[in-house]
Amino acid sequence: MPGWQVPAGGIDVPGLVVDADVLERNLRAMAGSAARRGLALRPHVKTHKSLAVARRQRDLGAVGLSVATVSEAEVFADGGFDDLFIAYPVWAGGDRGARLARLARRARLSVGVDCLAAVAALAAAVGPAAPVSVLVEVDCGLRRSGVPPAAAGPLAVAAARAGLAVAGVFTFPGHSYAPGAAAGAAADEAAALTAAAASLAAAGLPCPVRSGGSTPTAALTQAGPVTELRPGVYAFNDAQQVTLGSCGPADVALAAAATVVSAGPGRFVLDAGSKVLGPDRPGWAPGHGLLPGFPGWQVSGLWEHHAVATMTGGGPPQVGEQVMVIPNHVCTAVNLAGHLDVVRDGRRIDRWPVSARGRNL
Amino acid sequence: MPGWQVPAGGIDVPGLVVDADVLERNLRAMAGSAARRGLALRPHVKTHKSLAVARRQRDLGAVGLSVATVSEAEVFADGGFDDLFIAYPVWAGGDRGARLARLARRARLSVGVDCLAAVAALAAAVGPAAPVSVLVEVDCGLRRSGVPPAAAGPLAVAAARAGLAVAGVFTFPGHSYAPGAAAGAAADEAAALTAAAASLAAAGLPCPVRSGGSTPTAALTQAGPVTELRPGVYAFNDAQQVTLGSCGPADVALAAAATVVSAGPGRFVLDAGSKVLGPDRPGWAPGHGLLPGFPGWQVSGLWEHHAVATMTGGGPPQVGEQVMVIPNHVCTAVNLAGHLDVVRDGRRIDRWPVSARGRNL
Repeated sequence: MPGWQVPAGGIDVPGLVVDADVLERNLRAMAGSAARRGLALRPHVKTHKSLAVARRQRDLGAVGLSVATVSEAEVFADGGFDDLFIAYPVWAGGDRGARLARLARRARLSVGVDCLAAVAALAAAVGPAAPVSVLVEVDCGLRRSGVPPAAAGPLAVAAARAGLAVAGVFTFPGHSYAPGAAAGAAADEAAALTAAAASLAAAGLPCPVRSGGSTPTAALTQAGPVTELRPGVYAFNDAQQVTLGSCGPADVALAAAATVVSAGPGRFVLDAGSKVLGPDRPGWAPGHGLLPGFPGWQVSGLWEHHAVATMTGGGPPQVGEQVMVIPNHVCTAVNLAGHLDVVRDGRRIDRWPVSARGRNL
Repeated sequence: MPGWQVPAGGIDVPGLVVDADVLERNLRAMAGSAARRGLALRPHVKTHKSLAVARRQRDLGAVGLSVATVSEAEVFADGGFDDLFIAYPVWAGGDRGARLARLARRARLSVGVDCLAAVAALAAAVGPAAPVSVLVEVDCGLRRSGVPPAAAGPLAVAAARAGLAVAGVFTFPGHSYAPGAAAGAAADEAAALTAAAASLAAAGLPCPVRSGGSTPTAALTQAGPVTELRPGVYAFNDAQQVTLGSCGPADVALAAAATVVSAGPGRFVLDAGSKVLGPDRPGWAPGHGLLPGFPGWQVSGLWEHHAVATMTGGGPPQVGEQVMVIPNHVCTAVNLAGHLDVVRDGRRIDRWPVSARGRNL
């Protein structure tokens, strides 16, 4: 954002602002990088939850979208997207089976699975007529969900026997979210997907899709072991990515506009608290967000409606001044907002609804 | 909630569930406790953002409501509440001055101030005709916003000279949010409000309202030094309050219903992640939430759509089972939800919109 000035007029303060030019550059850079390496790009839309951004990702060559939930898939299917992967070990209980079956009639739909019970529930819920395909989730080191790579083949066989088409395997190298961890996580991703594909091959199943990717590892992902990338954050970037070195401050396309509501020697207080920025703060983050317009200042305290910035010495901005803050984790910040104010050259040019805000079902 | 069972049918999973009986007991207990001590109760509605809960608080004797933002005040004024205190150092720039003036014509409105610039902006924006009164914010130890107690009198004089009615002083003893800190924070609150009132008296101004209160300190607040309590969380309580000892697990009126989506030896994964529970985790919290139905298990990992629970040994629940999780911080969890499912005796009896969700302006 030019000079990290708050755009004049027409935007919500406190609220989230998107720089259209930086966003476009980020989308093009990732699309180009994936294409040059022969990797399919299936961006994760949980970051932006916005049809406008997803359309641009599609126009730039994305093969489809990754979503986190069935209700997120419904929002993007309603928006005209016809190739959706729910990159999550979905439990097809309650009304979710019928909703998945309906989605599968409107879009090419694939779903993550990581256990026999979920495979059985999915097969029973969607029935043999619904063309839902599955990808087996493999754990490559995050220790969150997913089976060990060697268990992928037996689970894929069970899915195929239950009548589900098996498209391949996927993993999330989320242990890339720590300083210096990206290269190791990318290597783990390649090894796990290779081993998982071998496990499917040993069981007599092909494994055309080997899907991985996170923003910190995206530039390091090896085509071959991996066929598809699912990064999300890269569209906007955030303070975490700057701290991890995935991008520089000039690559951050989204920031919160805030007002200084209190100030004193060595400190000022902004009205963008955790209900605007999101409360995420990993142990390695230097603060609760970044203040690119105020070098040396740290966001050292965060409450629901207060962000306290401090430094030793140095004059703070005046009460009433407006300031831009980069959230630590853009995905949770966007999910708090009803809309994003889109600016170019310091002027608002659009307002995008966060269409999939709060769609957790 | 009875047995911490997920109510059968009709509720969102993942989603937030309110136990109507526990809520009613919490509301009655705080109303009774304040009344017995002669303290006015002005509950902070940023916790529940719900007209239904606020109406019940009013019926039980609340003198008015505390809100965090101008747009929160607008929601509750629209809902028929006519005594609103914006317990925040409001900056009356942009359209906020006109909005405050409009609010003041519909409700008895008071606003926090903590600096001369904000006083001048408020007086200029609302004009002499709008009956907006101010309370001077005093810092009693949190080091967030507010002036030192001895500076309250001069700021109150400036406000009175600018044509604003001065109702008194307020503080938030938020440094009560640490184990063993409540008694000290309550003593700090009493001392700061007493000193601030003395500062106003020395300047020739009365100080009828001396407003304090937080859920951890509410039972300890001294009537006399303090005239009014502004707790919020007590309506629902949360994992933080259980850990701090402000309440027991049986006093928690809100929990997230979630589904087990993955499980293995010593671990299971729920679909209520930080986009349902909120990502708040102070350093002293034992995990990212509490699992009262699974003693010994910790919510040891949290991502946007995954909560990982672990223990050493012990059988996890089955994939597909539903589980209740108590969020760490209920205020940010509620702000993520479109509605709350209200249950009694394990059955849904109502669905309350989170009317002030995301109202940060």
